[in-house]
Amino acid sequence: MSDLFDFPKVEFIGGKKGVDFKATQGFNFYNPTEEITINGVTKQMKDWMKFSVAYWHTMDQRMVDPFGEGTAQRPWDVNGEDDMSDMEHALAKIDYLFEFMDKLGLEYFAFHDRDLAPQGNTLAETNANLDKVVDRIEAKMQETGKKLLWNTSSLFTDKRFLAGGATTPFADVFAYAAAQIKHSLEIAKRLNAESYVFWGGREGYESLLNTDTKRELDHIAAFFKMAKNYANEIGFTGQFLLEPKPKEPTDHQYDTDVQTTIAFLKTYGLEDDFKLNLEGNHAYLAGHKYEHEARFAREAGMLGSLDANMGDKQTGWDIDEFPNDIYEATMVMYEFILNGGLTTGGLNFDAKVRRGSFKPEDLFYAHMAGMDVYAAGLRVALKMYEDGFLEQIKQERYASFDQGMFADFENGKGSLAQFEAYILNKTNDEIFATVESQHLEAIKATLNNYIYAVLGARFN
Amino acid sequence: MSDLFDFPKVEFIGGKKGVDFKATQGFNFYNPTEEITINGVTKQMKDWMKFSVAYWHTMDQRMVDPFGEGTAQRPWDVNGEDDMSDMEHALAKIDYLFEFMDKLGLEYFAFHDRDLAPQGNTLAETNANLDKVVDRIEAKMQETGKKLLWNTSSLFTDKRFLAGGATTPFADVFAYAAAQIKHSLEIAKRLNAESYVFWGGREGYESLLNTDTKRELDHIAAFFKMAKNYANEIGFTGQFLLEPKPKEPTDHQYDTDVQTTIAFLKTYGLEDDFKLNLEGNHAYLAGHKYEHEARFAREAGMLGSLDANMGDKQTGWDIDEFPNDIYEATMVMYEFILNGGLTTGGLNFDAKVRRGSFKPEDLFYAHMAGMDVYAAGLRVALKMYEDGFLEQIKQERYASFDQGMFADFENGKGSLAQFEAYILNKTNDEIFATVESQHLEAIKATLNNYIYAVLGARFN
Amino acid sequence: MSDLFDFPKVEFIGGKKGVDFKATQGFNFYNPTEEITINGVTKQMKDWMKFSVAYWHTMDQRMVDPFGEGTAQRPWDVNGEDDMSDMEHALAKIDYLFEFMDKLGLEYFAFHDRDLAPQGNTLAETNANLDKVVDRIEAKMQETGKKLLWNTSSLFTDKRFLAGGATTPFADVFAYAAAQIKHSLEIAKRLNAESYVFWGGREGYESLLNTDTKRELDHIAAFFKMAKNYANEIGFTGQFLLEPKPKEPTDHQYDTDVQTTIAFLKTYGLEDDFKLNLEGNHAYLAGHKYEHEARFAREAGMLGSLDANMGDKQTGWDIDEFPNDIYEATMVMYEFILNGGLTTGGLNFDAKVRRGSFKPEDLFYAHMAGMDVYAAGLRVALKMYEDGFLEQIKQERYASFDQGMFADFENGKGSLAQFEAYILNKTNDEIFATVESQHLEAIKATLNNYIYAVLGARFN
Amino acid sequence: MSDLFDFPKVEFIGGKKGVDFKATQGFNFYNPTEEITINGVTKQMKDWMKFSVAYWHTMDQRMVDPFGEGTAQRPWDVNGEDDMSDMEHALAKIDYLFEFMDKLGLEYFAFHDRDLAPQGNTLAETNANLDKVVDRIEAKMQETGKKLLWNTSSLFTDKRFLAGGATTPFADVFAYAAAQIKHSLEIAKRLNAESYVFWGGREGYESLLNTDTKRELDHIAAFFKMAKNYANEIGFTGQFLLEPKPKEPTDHQYDTDVQTTIAFLKTYGLEDDFKLNLEGNHAYLAGHKYEHEARFAREAGMLGSLDANMGDKQTGWDIDEFPNDIYEATMVMYEFILNGGLTTGGLNFDAKVRRGSFKPEDLFYAHMAGMDVYAAGLRVALKMYEDGFLEQIKQERYASFDQGMFADFENGKGSLAQFEAYILNKTNDEIFATVESQHLEAIKATLNNYIYAVLGARFN
Repeated sequence: MSDLFDFPKVEFIGGKKGVDFKATQGFNFYNPTEEITINGVTKQMKDWMKFSVAYWHTMDQRMVDPFGEGTAQRPWDVNGEDDMSDMEHALAKIDYLFEFMDKLGLEYFAFHDRDLAPQGNTLAETNANLDKVVDRIEAKMQETGKKLLWNTSSLFTDKRFLAGGATTPFADVFAYAAAQIKHSLEIAKRLNAESYVFWGGREGYESLLNTDTKRELDHIAAFFKMAKNYANEIGFTGQFLLEPKPKEPTDHQYDTDVQTTIAFLKTYGLEDDFKLNLEGNHAYLAGHKYEHEARFAREAGMLGSLDANMGDKQTGWDIDEFPNDIYEATMVMYEFILNGGLTTGGLNFDAKVRRGSFKPEDLFYAHMAGMDVYAAGLRVALKMYEDGFLEQIKQERYASFDQGMFADFENGKGSLAQFEAYILNKTNDEIFATVESQHLEAIKATLNNYIYAVLGARFN
Repeated sequence: MSDLFDFPKVEFIGGKKGVDFKATQGFNFYNPTEEITINGVTKQMKDWMKFSVAYWHTMDQRMVDPFGEGTAQRPWDVNGEDDMSDMEHALAKIDYLFEFMDKLGLEYFAFHDRDLAPQGNTLAETNANLDKVVDRIEAKMQETGKKLLWNTSSLFTDKRFLAGGATTPFADVFAYAAAQIKHSLEIAKRLNAESYVFWGGREGYESLLNTDTKRELDHIAAFFKMAKNYANEIGFTGQFLLEPKPKEPTDHQYDTDVQTTIAFLKTYGLEDDFKLNLEGNHAYLAGHKYEHEARFAREAGMLGSLDANMGDKQTGWDIDEFPNDIYEATMVMYEFILNGGLTTGGLNFDAKVRRGSFKPEDLFYAHMAGMDVYAAGLRVALKMYEDGFLEQIKQERYASFDQGMFADFENGKGSLAQFEAYILNKTNDEIFATVESQHLEAIKATLNNYIYAVLGARFN
Repeated sequence: MSDLFDFPKVEFIGGKKGVDFKATQGFNFYNPTEEITINGVTKQMKDWMKFSVAYWHTMDQRMVDPFGEGTAQRPWDVNGEDDMSDMEHALAKIDYLFEFMDKLGLEYFAFHDRDLAPQGNTLAETNANLDKVVDRIEAKMQETGKKLLWNTSSLFTDKRFLAGGATTPFADVFAYAAAQIKHSLEIAKRLNAESYVFWGGREGYESLLNTDTKRELDHIAAFFKMAKNYANEIGFTGQFLLEPKPKEPTDHQYDTDVQTTIAFLKTYGLEDDFKLNLEGNHAYLAGHKYEHEARFAREAGMLGSLDANMGDKQTGWDIDEFPNDIYEATMVMYEFILNGGLTTGGLNFDAKVRRGSFKPEDLFYAHMAGMDVYAAGLRVALKMYEDGFLEQIKQERYASFDQGMFADFENGKGSLAQFEAYILNKTNDEIFATVESQHLEAIKATLNNYIYAVLGARFN
Repeated sequence: MSDLFDFPKVEFIGGKKGVDFKATQGFNFYNPTEEITINGVTKQMKDWMKFSVAYWHTMDQRMVDPFGEGTAQRPWDVNGEDDMSDMEHALAKIDYLFEFMDKLGLEYFAFHDRDLAPQGNTLAETNANLDKVVDRIEAKMQETGKKLLWNTSSLFTDKRFLAGGATTPFADVFAYAAAQIKHSLEIAKRLNAESYVFWGGREGYESLLNTDTKRELDHIAAFFKMAKNYANEIGFTGQFLLEPKPKEPTDHQYDTDVQTTIAFLKTYGLEDDFKLNLEGNHAYLAGHKYEHEARFAREAGMLGSLDANMGDKQTGWDIDEFPNDIYEATMVMYEFILNGGLTTGGLNFDAKVRRGSFKPEDLFYAHMAGMDVYAAGLRVALKMYEDGFLEQIKQERYASFDQGMFADFENGKGSLAQFEAYILNKTNDEIFATVESQHLEAIKATLNNYIYAVLGARFN
């Protein structure tokens, strides 16, 4: 492969003495072929983590913000852009995508339909444009062995979707959304996507005053059933994923967070057809931590895939920053370990370089940073898990339920009267004597020591 | 009834010309015996609204905050407090409660078990103390015809509940919680409570690090089943209610908001046993508006009862202010109307006077303000409903789904392929031509006019 | 003037019996020529309020958001857009602006330099383009008598400003910003702008890690001094205004809020050269209410002008909604009254129609709604002020400072020892007996009655 | 000293191989007598950091929260509490304080007046109680060499202060506040406090409706002048400190954040008399990061002292958690280094153990965690500083201002016209070519490597 990007292949340099701390020289923690054993299962690190490049951010994002034009400098802009048609341009960028993945050791990618190719004047024309780019992708996948983590459909960019796609009040727009999803599922099947994601960016409301929320939710539930039916019809067996976010661009998005999405799925009998694709910054906007969302999705058997990004808990919009917080990476990867990894899911960088990081090399630096912090998080989490650090704390904390009438209770037996008989005449002091200190300050300080010790080993 | 409070009975003065605007002279909008017809059902205003006094705030709150001691001046403090035992004091306050209700025209009240009587050294002793106060309440109820909207049990005040009641990791504390609920249900039965509320103030987590969230949720679900079994056993038929709140005192409370609570109930098969008791300030803490929570509870068939309070959307803790926002009162009462009222529920003032409003008369002023703003909200909402203002907007907005293949879709028929066939060759412009402007600015300005016109009529 | 907009001239219909509540028919509260007396000064309502149309939102906003393309339908798009050059287009829109103002009875407008005309390849070319549009504006102003409330310069849209304008670390960009401001001031002089606004959208930091905050603040302070010097040099005597906002697009904007901006001005000796232009939604983002910012600006003698918009206190970005909250309008206009109006300032609609309100008529409806709610707010505030409702409460509340040693203290005399001598042996009870209840619940309920009564009079 | 606490003296164990990660065994990073050189000045670590125990949290906090009673188990409760009078109890706790400091190697402490001794019926009696405890403290200080970092006065706990202390509208309460401060200053003088802190917990407003904010600010400014006069009179030369916080318990506290407090000080000519005492959790409540507040205080020459605590950026009230975030500790200590340390200030643990960490040993664990994370932060920050990591980035970033007309500009010369002449005919592309990428993703990843490498060295 020729050098489309003027940037070398990124190597693992972790553990080399004498290397300084600059994060631009290679991976310190992401060692793709290192064997990692989780609960007795051994795979290479790359096969556990399945990092994925998000086409829309990395290949298609001009670094616009609501107050300013795009700043991005991309090699495809200067290598003959002026002479290319939009379609030629769209095709050319596919080569950049695959070289980018190759140089970073990324094996997966993800895209929206509308990222890839320009719209035509009808959906038929639009699909035809898209298919030409998908042809190119398919050829490159066969050539390189790269895989599609998931694809999705943009039901939010075009102005027709101003009041939603599957929840729009306008029938023709709804029909368009349905038809658009149909073609996206065909592409998922053709490219063997491991999952298919629905992010309902405009599926929500701007105001309760004019919104029939019940009717809209009925519509989207039926829409999902049609989608599942069609997937079955064409034999697409990838995992369907919903991606919770509470708002932006809407004032309220129906898939607010993990629990809200579960309530929706259960209300409409869709819980067996979907898992969830979580995202750090979305969690913050819903008032949660990323590990909270991962925990509750995992325990519900709904942890499908992860968008590896972060935000700023004091900033009220989605900044989609590349991850750099070792605490969050550790805690999310701890849930990952308890989940036994992600099967059909992976870690997709739904993240964009800052508007001031506008050079091509920043795309590399940002992915390197994100891959390294999540690989570091996996290492810390795995060490804590192997030591039983947190699991033992939890086991001991609930130990009083492990026997007698309390164990029976956990097995479905018990009554208020029975517990009353047991406790009615115990004194307050006797009861409080069974309450143990949580020692959370010491637990958190020990977590710090794990981070320093496990990760510092590579520099010392 | 003798005058325990030095305050006259509050009368409806709405519509009297020449009365100035001071909100201390009587009700301007709450006219208890006025007949109100909602969807063909006619009741007196008091029987629709079922305002309730919250014993804990109005009778038992010293106006402490985390940085200062109590400021409250209450008549029961100065009428011989020094000579009374705690139990005598507890009994005496019941008389104040009933006079307070009488003077304000309130027919309902609500309490926690631990508000009413002092703890003993064992639960047996504690129950005995409580029963003496309940005896007094029962006698007053028979004497006055006042009713118990709901009661509940405090599984959060005593230090034993530092890690929860039904979700505590400590078995004896769990047993205590179970036994405490048992007695609360017996009281609910005895006093003929219309509902029974569970607010899980400490049912949540302080840190994911040491919390087995799944085990805790399993516990509380089984706890609720035991409670329902016991209610059935003793023939208590009041509605069980969960009260969502996202946090405080915990960092995360399991019953975060309406949708989270629905997810929980459905996960554990409890959805037929519970409805929800909503609260304005809790909604804000979860990032929602009060009417949002009311809407989604209503549409799920879960709108059980309302706590009439408000907070400050820019303040991050629960301030339980008496309501004074006509927008919110209108929108919540609009959902109330669409719900056909609240059957077993009512409007409970889970609200406290500000720490600077420490005089006895402030208890009256605050309830008058709260009753009046919700009565005003009902009047505005009902006028909008009768005019079809918002319902017509909604009906027209979704009208394109009322016929043909789209109506069929709403009836369970339809496929992606069918919609594709319909839309594939329509042009973008043709499709966008079916999208209508939402005119939200004009809708909101019209809502203002409704408020001014409906409510201003009483002064002009 | 020919009918560029297919919309009639908007009339005052307030007080006409039999008119329904629809807010699309005319003004209910804004009566431009009605004489209003504030503190003995009588002017027509339009001359007090000085409503202004914001060119960038109303004439130049395509209703794009970060997740979707523009939805706006504007008459200038369909009246021959395809045949026009960018410059012709820019010139044509000026005619629309002046008709729009005329039909709504708006006498003022405001613009950024970059809104008006396309950029050239150098600043010299850009200025030349701009000057042609300013020529047209000047002619229209002479023809119609309309006035420029303020103009400003966009130091944030072009990619060169990615790290700020006056605070950029890049010298050439700084020079560009300085030169751009120079020309903006020349335009302000030429068009006789009443004020000149600086909004420092990118004057802030993305990260403290790489920012020399002190050096940047030194730069911008010196930049402002150069601007003031140049204004003096060319005889521009309009008021300089800074516009506080805490963030967006930056993570932190230096002009965070009123107090931060005052600290900056005082630190650099600029406090006599500037006043403030406040905005509702900006206040929320800083954690404040709009009336808070108005209060503290007023008391510092810094209340220069107001941007009449609002946001959602639960939404973390700037939504620039047209105002519709009568509480906020009342409280802000109350500060306006205490300030004796705004002299060189006015009420500029820095507000955009919702993305779903994409029709030309929505521009009218939205301005009508905003003008009416602020005119309504003025009416309520003025009635409260004339009645002495709040002023009397305040006067009585602090009355104990009106005499004796406390009055002396307010006049600069007093010592800790003197107060100790006075209080040392008073008992706690004696002291608390001087503390009075605040009765805030009753005050807020009375405020509601003012709103209903004053505004309802027009419908009843 | 006898063993009042059943806990051993805490030792530095950092760097011992074979020690596991449990944070309960000793200090890993805080090595009190290790010599640390900052900018050429060498001191022992303990003399740089000056950690301080906060009497109110550690000795006087019962771990109450708004929904529950205290959980704290303290040795002084069980060693004969029942037989002691309140005064005896107050005296006894002083011995515990000094042993606690000794065992942790803390050399400083801080207190509010009202923490130490019970109130009497008059201020005269209250002062007499307090003086007895201060006698004991003085004796212990002489005996042990421990020092008072600062003291302060509670103008918020007693109900008389419900509307503020220095800003109360009630003259007698104001006089009480003045007299109380007088005695606090006398104690500061007597115990040789290094600073004196004013935290204006109730100096703010609950509602703008009834608050004369200007009059209140005039009062508190004059109050501060009286305090300064009295300090001068008695020869107290400790640093006066204001402590910003935006709200809680008030809805708005006047000392909102660093910049607001600076605006206040400059407005009233107090800027030479005060510096600031910052706190992490307070910063969050104001929408800032702790390092932001430290940065802006430092650059204003106002960085006086630090309260070492943290909160949760998604929790809207002050949780005063012991610090455990290495990122924040590093960034705050980086500002500390740039400030050359804190002279009269130190790091005071205005932090409380979690309500579930109710055992005496948790007081130790929590302080150990806090001391260690800030000592770790100092180590990382110092290494970055010595390497010039961030300083070099900043130097290079602004380098284009280091010469020619831009350097002149920084020296006070320059005009808009001059910059216009320079830039007017440069092309957009030429100008943008001078803009450099910020590479923030790589900078943040490098910061991670610093943390891992510097701190991991102690375990590897």
